[in-house]
Amino acid sequence: MKIEKSLNEDNMNQRLLKIHYAVRGPILERALAIQTDLNEGVLKPFKRVIRANIGDCHALGQRPITFIRQVLALATCPGLRSLQNIPEDVKERVREILGECVSGSVGSYSPAPGLLLIRKHVAQYLTARDGVAANFNNIYLGSGASDLIKSVLTLFVEKVDGKPPGVMIPIPQYPLFSGTLSELGLQQVDYYLDEDDGWVLKYEELERSWRAASEHCSVRAIVVINPGNPTGQVMHEMGDPFKKLQLSSFMTCSKGWAAECGLRAGVLELVSLEPRVISALEAARSTQQCASVLGQCVVDCVMRPPTPGSPSFSLFSSERDRLRRALSERAFAAHTAFNSIPGYFCNPIEGAMFAFPRIEIPGKAKQEAAERGLVPDEFYCLRLLEETGVCVVPGSGFGQRPGSYHFRTTILHDKDEFSYMLACIRRFHLNFIEEYS
Amino acid sequence: MKIEKSLNEDNMNQRLLKIHYAVRGPILERALAIQTDLNEGVLKPFKRVIRANIGDCHALGQRPITFIRQVLALATCPGLRSLQNIPEDVKERVREILGECVSGSVGSYSPAPGLLLIRKHVAQYLTARDGVAANFNNIYLGSGASDLIKSVLTLFVEKVDGKPPGVMIPIPQYPLFSGTLSELGLQQVDYYLDEDDGWVLKYEELERSWRAASEHCSVRAIVVINPGNPTGQVMHEMGDPFKKLQLSSFMTCSKGWAAECGLRAGVLELVSLEPRVISALEAARSTQQCASVLGQCVVDCVMRPPTPGSPSFSLFSSERDRLRRALSERAFAAHTAFNSIPGYFCNPIEGAMFAFPRIEIPGKAKQEAAERGLVPDEFYCLRLLEETGVCVVPGSGFGQRPGSYHFRTTILHDKDEFSYMLACIRRFHLNFIEEYS
Repeated sequence: MKIEKSLNEDNMNQRLLKIHYAVRGPILERALAIQTDLNEGVLKPFKRVIRANIGDCHALGQRPITFIRQVLALATCPGLRSLQNIPEDVKERVREILGECVSGSVGSYSPAPGLLLIRKHVAQYLTARDGVAANFNNIYLGSGASDLIKSVLTLFVEKVDGKPPGVMIPIPQYPLFSGTLSELGLQQVDYYLDEDDGWVLKYEELERSWRAASEHCSVRAIVVINPGNPTGQVMHEMGDPFKKLQLSSFMTCSKGWAAECGLRAGVLELVSLEPRVISALEAARSTQQCASVLGQCVVDCVMRPPTPGSPSFSLFSSERDRLRRALSERAFAAHTAFNSIPGYFCNPIEGAMFAFPRIEIPGKAKQEAAERGLVPDEFYCLRLLEETGVCVVPGSGFGQRPGSYHFRTTILHDKDEFSYMLACIRRFHLNFIEEYS
Repeated sequence: MKIEKSLNEDNMNQRLLKIHYAVRGPILERALAIQTDLNEGVLKPFKRVIRANIGDCHALGQRPITFIRQVLALATCPGLRSLQNIPEDVKERVREILGECVSGSVGSYSPAPGLLLIRKHVAQYLTARDGVAANFNNIYLGSGASDLIKSVLTLFVEKVDGKPPGVMIPIPQYPLFSGTLSELGLQQVDYYLDEDDGWVLKYEELERSWRAASEHCSVRAIVVINPGNPTGQVMHEMGDPFKKLQLSSFMTCSKGWAAECGLRAGVLELVSLEPRVISALEAARSTQQCASVLGQCVVDCVMRPPTPGSPSFSLFSSERDRLRRALSERAFAAHTAFNSIPGYFCNPIEGAMFAFPRIEIPGKAKQEAAERGLVPDEFYCLRLLEETGVCVVPGSGFGQRPGSYHFRTTILHDKDEFSYMLACIRRFHLNFIEEYS
């Protein structure tokens, strides 16, 4: 038997070579190397790296919600229920969940779409939130929203009328979308959010984008990110004709007050999809079995948090409200601080944990960036990192209107760290402008 | 803007329509319906459904390993460390793992390939197990092995010398492989394990399979399942030329003594892959972020169990040894019992939790199956379910030599249940033979 050519760059899946995931790209690698240098005593103009590149609340000091963690610990070790300081509603919640697990163990597989009980709770939550009845049969639990998003995008991989399939995504976007489209061989069709109008989605721009793309591909779906990532705006209503479309709606437990991103918990609701499409999606997901049952428990806690009067409510609501207040304060502080820097513009941050300020980059800096083989915002962010230790992600990793430059920063650090970071950025920018003007 | 055709059976990804996942197929659906009937008081010739269709140890009553569950509970709620009955080595393990999590929370993302500390432990485990040095840089943690297997198979999606890519898989196989190959558009190239020689893999058969396939596709990889699933044999040595090939080796925490399948924990080791291939794999996986950090904790416990002298060792080893003994007893009992049924043949079950006996099906039964639009082993398993409540998976879901028929059953039930199940199968088979001869 002849041994075939081994796997190499030329004969491997070429689509994978096109994936760029800026959030964990070369700037983060450089940040990690700098942190290692600092740990080994290398002298730098700063004492530590401030990682503002990834939306990871716990990593930046947000404390987990006690109720969630108690449910997880008890679901894992049911023997702990004899402890005095475990509230009754935690015990009751775990009893319900384990009653749904085969043989009462979170270590047994759930059905591939998730535990039925939890899917029902998700449907109840969505019904209450949206005022539109959700059906638990259309709910799927996944390893984070990313996992579910990839499954749904996979459905669109098919030519229509001889034209290759394409998917419209907002620019700026979260690179999960561009990366997954690359991997699946779906054409990325950009539509621009309107930065000058609070990053709003405009019907005319959708139309323009669709028309331009339709000449070479068949547009099969439109992605809407809400709240915006990296842009932070909130869309309250899509209006007609969107209400009548087939809809795949995703939600994650990685952000917001739960912020359990390490536990990988996400939700998908399918609206108006055909049964045969759904059964094929289910078959494809079945080969991968279920999402982590402990992740599913997180979904249950997020969708059905303690209610007033229950033993856990007071602690839960104080923890949740403190987080919301802090996020809202920092959103306001970031917006104010960025707009006070000459050459910066930042929209209000309505519903996310990121800011995406626009920055003016002088012509001489662009020239130097080009000489170094970098795009201007990458050059800017790299210089910011080298001089201040602040690690943010260049706007080019998310997409931006040609000629405009941005970066994405999380707004998750505690107040002091956040003020320090904003001061670093201001100081750096003023020096940078002076150097290159 | 014209609204494009909505997603339907004709314009959706046609590859997904080809996925069949027998382990959770129509027979399981019927089993669930029968159980619902029984719960509602419908009279049947049996009192309950015995689910032997899926390798889910906890679902069938295997108790979780205390050490693993204590580590998980403490990693989730570090405040529990003040409890008196938590052993010191559990506390120490959790301190180490949380020390590796950003800000000490399992709720923060780990690097996409997994926590570095745990990858190092995996490398140490593999080095000790195989006597060949493993490098932690080549270790990846995933949401079960399935997740990682799919990622690696994705690499091969590319024509070579103008021929479509194919992957050789053993027959019988676990349908994760056939399903994932269908989804990815990789041609499935069958090679048969030799049932008459203990399900061994034969070089000549590999050669035959490769030659036949090479006329229409480029064979890019060979899948070896060890221990065999559904077949249960163990391969101790692959020998040359396999030692020199590029290798992707997978391991799961879903089976064996841990058996935490609901927690989704798996491991991949890459051997001799090119750096550019590895970086593309990493980029593709990064868009999905990391595997559940609690799943990663399970990997750590499995790869680095309590050692002699540590506080948890005695309980751990007694739990593990009891499980191993029980499995080994049932493997022997299943082998003996099946071979004592006229028309049955079953190879020794060396290293798995499944039996895959071959059954003779009379011509008249095949005829009736055909009239009902079923393949013979599906008809057999459906009749078995309807008459005894025993739910097993037809061999056709895994593949089998044309004209031979099998089913896969788990051997995980407790002794009494298992004896009862074997008795049901024997009784059913004798009646079935009588009816159709």
